[in-house]
Amino acid sequence: MITVAIVNVTSYTALELLRLLALHPDFVVTSVTGRSAVGRRLGDVFPQLYVQTAIDSSLVITEEAAPTALAFVCLPHAAAAVTVLQLLKNGTKVVDLSADFRLRDASTYEAWYKHSHPAPELLATTPYGLCERNREQIQYASLVANPGCYATASILALLPAFAAGVVHESVIIDAKSGASGAGRSPSLTTLYDEVNENINAYSLDGHRHLPEITQEVEAVAGTQARQLRLTFIPHLVPMTRGILATCYTDLKDKTWTTKRVQELYQTYYASEPFVHVVDQSPHTKWSYGSNTCFIHPFVDTRTQRLVVVSCLDNLVKGAAGQAVQNANMLFRLPETTGLTGLAVYP
Amino acid sequence: MITVAIVNVTSYTALELLRLLALHPDFVVTSVTGRSAVGRRLGDVFPQLYVQTAIDSSLVITEEAAPTALAFVCLPHAAAAVTVLQLLKNGTKVVDLSADFRLRDASTYEAWYKHSHPAPELLATTPYGLCERNREQIQYASLVANPGCYATASILALLPAFAAGVVHESVIIDAKSGASGAGRSPSLTTLYDEVNENINAYSLDGHRHLPEITQEVEAVAGTQARQLRLTFIPHLVPMTRGILATCYTDLKDKTWTTKRVQELYQTYYASEPFVHVVDQSPHTKWSYGSNTCFIHPFVDTRTQRLVVVSCLDNLVKGAAGQAVQNANMLFRLPETTGLTGLAVYP
Amino acid sequence: MITVAIVNVTSYTALELLRLLALHPDFVVTSVTGRSAVGRRLGDVFPQLYVQTAIDSSLVITEEAAPTALAFVCLPHAAAAVTVLQLLKNGTKVVDLSADFRLRDASTYEAWYKHSHPAPELLATTPYGLCERNREQIQYASLVANPGCYATASILALLPAFAAGVVHESVIIDAKSGASGAGRSPSLTTLYDEVNENINAYSLDGHRHLPEITQEVEAVAGTQARQLRLTFIPHLVPMTRGILATCYTDLKDKTWTTKRVQELYQTYYASEPFVHVVDQSPHTKWSYGSNTCFIHPFVDTRTQRLVVVSCLDNLVKGAAGQAVQNANMLFRLPETTGLTGLAVYP
Amino acid sequence: MITVAIVNVTSYTALELLRLLALHPDFVVTSVTGRSAVGRRLGDVFPQLYVQTAIDSSLVITEEAAPTALAFVCLPHAAAAVTVLQLLKNGTKVVDLSADFRLRDASTYEAWYKHSHPAPELLATTPYGLCERNREQIQYASLVANPGCYATASILALLPAFAAGVVHESVIIDAKSGASGAGRSPSLTTLYDEVNENINAYSLDGHRHLPEITQEVEAVAGTQARQLRLTFIPHLVPMTRGILATCYTDLKDKTWTTKRVQELYQTYYASEPFVHVVDQSPHTKWSYGSNTCFIHPFVDTRTQRLVVVSCLDNLVKGAAGQAVQNANMLFRLPETTGLTGLAVYP
Repeated sequence: MITVAIVNVTSYTALELLRLLALHPDFVVTSVTGRSAVGRRLGDVFPQLYVQTAIDSSLVITEEAAPTALAFVCLPHAAAAVTVLQLLKNGTKVVDLSADFRLRDASTYEAWYKHSHPAPELLATTPYGLCERNREQIQYASLVANPGCYATASILALLPAFAAGVVHESVIIDAKSGASGAGRSPSLTTLYDEVNENINAYSLDGHRHLPEITQEVEAVAGTQARQLRLTFIPHLVPMTRGILATCYTDLKDKTWTTKRVQELYQTYYASEPFVHVVDQSPHTKWSYGSNTCFIHPFVDTRTQRLVVVSCLDNLVKGAAGQAVQNANMLFRLPETTGLTGLAVYP
Repeated sequence: MITVAIVNVTSYTALELLRLLALHPDFVVTSVTGRSAVGRRLGDVFPQLYVQTAIDSSLVITEEAAPTALAFVCLPHAAAAVTVLQLLKNGTKVVDLSADFRLRDASTYEAWYKHSHPAPELLATTPYGLCERNREQIQYASLVANPGCYATASILALLPAFAAGVVHESVIIDAKSGASGAGRSPSLTTLYDEVNENINAYSLDGHRHLPEITQEVEAVAGTQARQLRLTFIPHLVPMTRGILATCYTDLKDKTWTTKRVQELYQTYYASEPFVHVVDQSPHTKWSYGSNTCFIHPFVDTRTQRLVVVSCLDNLVKGAAGQAVQNANMLFRLPETTGLTGLAVYP
Repeated sequence: MITVAIVNVTSYTALELLRLLALHPDFVVTSVTGRSAVGRRLGDVFPQLYVQTAIDSSLVITEEAAPTALAFVCLPHAAAAVTVLQLLKNGTKVVDLSADFRLRDASTYEAWYKHSHPAPELLATTPYGLCERNREQIQYASLVANPGCYATASILALLPAFAAGVVHESVIIDAKSGASGAGRSPSLTTLYDEVNENINAYSLDGHRHLPEITQEVEAVAGTQARQLRLTFIPHLVPMTRGILATCYTDLKDKTWTTKRVQELYQTYYASEPFVHVVDQSPHTKWSYGSNTCFIHPFVDTRTQRLVVVSCLDNLVKGAAGQAVQNANMLFRLPETTGLTGLAVYP
Repeated sequence: MITVAIVNVTSYTALELLRLLALHPDFVVTSVTGRSAVGRRLGDVFPQLYVQTAIDSSLVITEEAAPTALAFVCLPHAAAAVTVLQLLKNGTKVVDLSADFRLRDASTYEAWYKHSHPAPELLATTPYGLCERNREQIQYASLVANPGCYATASILALLPAFAAGVVHESVIIDAKSGASGAGRSPSLTTLYDEVNENINAYSLDGHRHLPEITQEVEAVAGTQARQLRLTFIPHLVPMTRGILATCYTDLKDKTWTTKRVQELYQTYYASEPFVHVVDQSPHTKWSYGSNTCFIHPFVDTRTQRLVVVSCLDNLVKGAAGQAVQNANMLFRLPETTGLTGLAVYP
């Protein structure tokens, strides 16, 4: 068994990691940290863990992680990088769920996150942990930067079209997310009465997942679209889990049909276990609790736009599930290990 | 008092009309029809009406409307037109909440609604009942075509920009709606368990509100944008009421700032009682139960796109409230009569 | 016009007062206070107020209330009493929405609220503001104690049976409430993700509305049930508004039928404008945004228990609406003034 | 591998069976039936199954089940019994999720289900499939009657108290359920807009799970409480999954404390893998998607009542999960096989 630490276990993402790891045959959680709950037992913070399972609910939450082979870091940015450096020094392999190692360029990081990067020397070599794109590098890495939830849905939706070079560089992503993406810290914005029966756009002056999307899509596009003209507007939807990204692009060639773009996408993702190209409009609920991303590309025939709708569970394929997928690869386990659960529906 | 009939009273739109008319000082509901409930009393169908109010809950539902000065027709398209013709013949003024008289062009109607129009001769002269645009004509009309809910949110968001000619003809509208827009007829699609904790896009091959939007925006744009290149994608959101439309356009001139477009919009709607231009991202919940449309235009500075977010209650400004607003104008009453209620929040 | 101050305007209850007072023909809000928002304008705190209405959204929030004829106090207990005393000294009539003046007995208050009462001398004479029971006293008072939301639903459900002396002193109230009763202060408990898709019981060791219910029901029961044996368990339900109280009692006489108890209840409330006895199971949604309490009594024939289901909107009849009803009586206005709005449905 | 048929696969319960069986190491689904979808593939009815999993989404839905070792019958009552008889004749072991074989007494069945029983001769010997009570019989049976969802939550809450004989025969169960218990057939009652932001009681004249509860609790109580005086009132709550039962009983002895009853309950369920006695008020969400029932007993010290709050996921421990638990026992597999998944939270 591979020993696992979860750093900042009191977050929703960490809780989801516990749920997934409970069914994982090779990973065993032996250390959990969390500054706000030091000395408490895991089952005291999350009573639903007091059941018979592979997760030991009597684990005591500590301030520092005990030595383990693998660590999942669920800290906020900046704090994450500092901890990651320490863990790497100890020889622990790390999946970092923060944004700290997602951007290749330290100045871009600093422009968006408003502080200097604690370990810029690692940026160039840390793989962006979207397995569907960077499978090779992840296998040989010690640290993986787990992608953002919005970024995962958006990049997966755009990759095949930009890799094939069939669309122009103008992209609009209108994204919708449930409230769990905002985390477990109480705020007026995420109060039940404010979220329920409401939808609103937010981060209108630029959401931090935008540079990730730009970086990865430009990389796959190569010289064809060096300068993505990307508008990304996220919306908060009254649901707990789920992200739906509706992506609008312009086809270079007017002869594309829905059938042909679906074939292009199906071919691109043919061997991917967690990406499914479907021929109807996908529902976020199809992915509730599962590691699947559903993608539906179609041509808006009146305007010859390529529209791609993608969806996933922001806490699974958008966070904890993808982190386990990355961890599987760090340890050369089959990529789907522990991740074959179906969506909880309805 | 002006006597009022409500045709097809068993719909959600009609129920909302009853709520609004209960506070209206000049209109009194004297006749209600509804094929599925003939012979039943209003309070039997909607028990919440069994309270002390201006609405008579003991009104018996009939098959045909009794003679009244005014009628609101809440029938589905095609059925609506036939009833409207009969009512007009009897000298009743009519607000038609269906789509039957919204499109000026019978062939466009037939292309979208898949049947021939029952009264094409009325199309040219029936005003499209968006008071903010067609106030003059409505006052002198006998019949008004109440706009669609998505169309109201979208057109109000786009009018100032196209009237001023500051954007190109390329438009993307990503719209989100609560479930009440789908009506009161049971279906798998609108079952609680299917809608709850889910979001999905629908009508990907073209929603019927698209031609309304095109018609009205092209009209205001004049020769500057005769051929709108419009993509309109609606989404179903797990909430009962509310529409949010996020509209993406391209500015012709790179010097526009958020401040300047907000001024443009504020000036355009300065005297409108039910349209409010705001300087922050609006929440659908701000309009829950009220006849207000909130609009927030801003410039996405990275791409020089003009993005406009608008929202309203699909059953009020998007249906029954706008219908009362139109009815007020048909009878030369102050436009806000009976419509000054604030949003129910939270 | 009667001038009105709202003390602690940043609460949900105060916001609901503003909505109701916007349609009130005799009250005009001229002063609003709120420690956390001193110096801000009303419309900055609640953007949905930036519309054309009788509420002046440019009112500046102050620390102390300006002199007015009437004040609604929306402060937490203890803080409320201190402010109430000051307002009364200034000759202002007061509706206190806190719990401070609801209990006749200072020692009961102190046992439940864990501090000594700031003005015990007022307890004996301040009417408990349930108009359906204390209409006479309220008209001659300067201060009214507005009842708790759960208490209103529960007492109205039990009054007719205890007034008639038809049930034993054993009562179980299983109450269910939406989240807005918990107020607008962020906490983990009322975070969207915690409330959504969940129900739980709380305050198992005794909810503070219990002594109110006991006090009022024992008073109406007289010597017949001097010692109520009352269990009251509240539950948090994933909705914003609404309280449903399911009340279980034992009939003294086995000959009672559902028909007879419904007649008893209908007679008891025959002249009440805001209490409606119905012959089917009521839905909280029937009262969404309205000042109505629906009550359905029936006999569980297998056990000869009298079960009474009552429901209301916790922010209207359970708080702000009832407060306006009380204020109407303080000023000898018709009791229904400003309160005739129908429920918002669906 | 043990071959499995699912009869009436288009129901929510069957879909949940598929989700659980996808992780089951010993059962393999080889046949699915469903009259409304004959000839369609499983993945066409439930697109979320089009993923890499142990469930074959290309299985074609048939009218009759193919021969298998095990069948789960998800038909409505009456129809279920007929199919069960046929399956038993073919040597298939059956878990029947309908109500047809839950009641020992045919006349009770007929009184509640309003038709004569198709196979009364099987009633006496078919075990009521609550493993926590009837583990022994289930192992030797060919047919198990899977308990109702409300019944499971209620009986588990009451068993320890009645087995120990510490409470009187008077019981009130106030139960709350999400909408998925009502199934997948569209109806006005379960429309999103009707369920959302609403709670109501239903089946006031007697819910069909009442006789099950009576039967099982009376059996465990023996001569001490031969005549249960049981009131059972279910409520519909705006959530998809989850049942919470709040059970009120009267302690015979006034010396019981919360601590002692919790010990009594903990001892009773000490070796049960799926029943957890907790020392705080449980949340239905703790069991979302898992086979766990949480139980919290406490003494209401003011009235010396024993109140027991229990909760579970109505589709898992209340239906499909318990069915798998029963099937494990029919085949002498470890009882928890395939059922160790944690709750999906938040």
